[in-house]
Amino acid sequence: MKSVGLIVEYNPLHNGHKLHFALAKKMTGADACVAVMSGNFLQRGEPAIVSKWARTEMALRLGVDLVIELPTVFATSNAELFAHGAVSLLDRIGVVDTLCFGSECGDISWMKQAAQLLAHEAPEFSHLLKAGLRDGLPYPKAYAEAAHTYLTDHGIHGAALDQPNNILGFNYLLSLARLNSKIVPVTIQRQKAGYHQETITDEQIASATALRKILTEQQQKIAAVAGYVPRATVEVLQREWLSGLYPMTWENFAHPLFHRLLQLTAQELATYHEIEEGMEYRLLESVRRSKTVAQMISSAKSKRYTQNRIQRMLLNVLLDVKKDQISAFNLRHGASYARVLGFSQKGRALLQQAKQKSAIPLYTNVRDGLHPMLDVDIRSNALYRLAHSTQIEQPFLEEYRRIPLQITPE
Amino acid sequence: MKSVGLIVEYNPLHNGHKLHFALAKKMTGADACVAVMSGNFLQRGEPAIVSKWARTEMALRLGVDLVIELPTVFATSNAELFAHGAVSLLDRIGVVDTLCFGSECGDISWMKQAAQLLAHEAPEFSHLLKAGLRDGLPYPKAYAEAAHTYLTDHGIHGAALDQPNNILGFNYLLSLARLNSKIVPVTIQRQKAGYHQETITDEQIASATALRKILTEQQQKIAAVAGYVPRATVEVLQREWLSGLYPMTWENFAHPLFHRLLQLTAQELATYHEIEEGMEYRLLESVRRSKTVAQMISSAKSKRYTQNRIQRMLLNVLLDVKKDQISAFNLRHGASYARVLGFSQKGRALLQQAKQKSAIPLYTNVRDGLHPMLDVDIRSNALYRLAHSTQIEQPFLEEYRRIPLQITPE
Repeated sequence: MKSVGLIVEYNPLHNGHKLHFALAKKMTGADACVAVMSGNFLQRGEPAIVSKWARTEMALRLGVDLVIELPTVFATSNAELFAHGAVSLLDRIGVVDTLCFGSECGDISWMKQAAQLLAHEAPEFSHLLKAGLRDGLPYPKAYAEAAHTYLTDHGIHGAALDQPNNILGFNYLLSLARLNSKIVPVTIQRQKAGYHQETITDEQIASATALRKILTEQQQKIAAVAGYVPRATVEVLQREWLSGLYPMTWENFAHPLFHRLLQLTAQELATYHEIEEGMEYRLLESVRRSKTVAQMISSAKSKRYTQNRIQRMLLNVLLDVKKDQISAFNLRHGASYARVLGFSQKGRALLQQAKQKSAIPLYTNVRDGLHPMLDVDIRSNALYRLAHSTQIEQPFLEEYRRIPLQITPE
Repeated sequence: MKSVGLIVEYNPLHNGHKLHFALAKKMTGADACVAVMSGNFLQRGEPAIVSKWARTEMALRLGVDLVIELPTVFATSNAELFAHGAVSLLDRIGVVDTLCFGSECGDISWMKQAAQLLAHEAPEFSHLLKAGLRDGLPYPKAYAEAAHTYLTDHGIHGAALDQPNNILGFNYLLSLARLNSKIVPVTIQRQKAGYHQETITDEQIASATALRKILTEQQQKIAAVAGYVPRATVEVLQREWLSGLYPMTWENFAHPLFHRLLQLTAQELATYHEIEEGMEYRLLESVRRSKTVAQMISSAKSKRYTQNRIQRMLLNVLLDVKKDQISAFNLRHGASYARVLGFSQKGRALLQQAKQKSAIPLYTNVRDGLHPMLDVDIRSNALYRLAHSTQIEQPFLEEYRRIPLQITPE
């Protein structure tokens, strides 16, 4: 059985994802598809609009065969560590042959060359990167500029590190190179809707950003996005909405977030992951100026610290993720366990294979103490679930009870 | 000007308090009255039903001339430290001549003798106390039994340390003895309504416990308590209710409390003040069994750990008060500043006197960094204020802006 790996958030799963899924299987000739999916908290530093269980159902009903959760600490990291967590997971479970991702450029060749050259950071490159950061550039921009100069100096042209999916794709290849992985990367040019695009310009394809904007701003009208998402997405969102489990936004966490930020001194705040360079003072100032989490974020962001970066900082406070814990995890080692969120009938067979071939443990049931990084996932899920109810409901403990979804598409 | 000191919570201020106030002035012949009042969190380990500002207004409209806030760490401590914080405040501001408190027994003589004897703990007494604790008794009961034996051995009879107001009164005298204070203590026998009494047996006097029960359980009908409280109490509660600032209960803090408890390991939980003897495990277990804070409290309490004790533990988690901080404060030294919450015209004159005579600084305006213990008060007030709104309102910063109330009763 040949299988293709995807790295996804599905927040929510839409027609663009559906198209990518179909093309990925076609281009790679795969019989099965494995998706590494972020859990309840995402790379932009925000809660998923609907739970990982709901999004796993969307994925399985689309035809994905096996859904593995990207551990929270990777899922909410910068592009490089996000990519490394996801790629190392696909690599280590031992049953994935290809990795197919979307990019703005649709060109894998410069990515391969650049990844080989940059897999092990040269002092010359580090020097360029630091100079950019000293000039006050945000990290992705400083990285892109340093890489452009360095790659051009080494005869590699056409590196397009100024667009989000190109950057992610390049980081996937960087990780494959660092892992000496046998997985073959393939890219598909994204069309019709940019990653950050907020307006809809096509009849069936819209970016997840544009869809979330409709879903959270326009009186949460699920029907309004029906033309841009598979039927399963509409059905799942409607069901979750009826159960009071959708939509989830940063504002659901306003009380515990403000509560915690009002308790912390700047010194204590600086012990949280990603909070550095005096951002602790800026964040505490922004608490005083804000009535909502959105206001807090917008008042704290700057040219150097983008909205996503601020959101990731706040997420680390919300989830109690501190610098010393992240150091102990050593994220550069990649993923060290695979939590199964769901599978199809074909996925079950794949899972049997993986049990033989995987270099890391596969968990279909979880409990505290299996792995400190998994404990963060369990805790984060409980906190996500808790934020749905003012009258606290026991379901925040569901993480202990849930077994993987088993769905084969109709 | 002669002035009498009172130690109060006024949660809410009722006719029993009004009667005590009148008798206190009459019995002591005082021209003025100074009240040390708990802030937003109380000795039972729970939030006040309405804010300290609202309760200060009730006090001033009753005729109290000067209201001083008992620092949060004393206000939420056990009876001995609560008493010591309050008595040391009255003593140190230098303008209080007498202390008048209610008691079940109405007899000051055994209290004086017992306080003199127990002011400096004898090894023999400590031995008796430890034996009781080893037998699994809750602290107040172990203390009462040890004291009874020890006092009887020393020829002091009639110590009635089995009732809450007698215990508090005895602790006031203990503190006066330890401080070598010149303040003269006077007690008035409480009648008609016991401290913990939940039912109403008189036509005009009911305990605060019974009144809170009506206010929070019977669809929050303020009018239902009108016969048992001064008009000012009804007016203030109604106004606060219209502003969405009343009533406050533990359930308003459910989200941040559950959120925090879901993050903490047993080891981390044990670093909080008052959490000891494995209670960290019991508390974490009770989180898993509960949908409300009330359920959590009732599932965690035991014969040894009373509801009030559990509530104080949870309050320390909510307010982030840890053992090392409490050690650094050294509560046995008593209060080291006086925060003024309000005063009448007469109170203003008293305040002028106090500025000359006080052994500790008097604060009418506050800012961060004046005193680490005051920082806890400011933070606690912000957290209390925050808990009123799901849409976060700026007013949680009101603590910085509020100046003392100036009200002279009509």
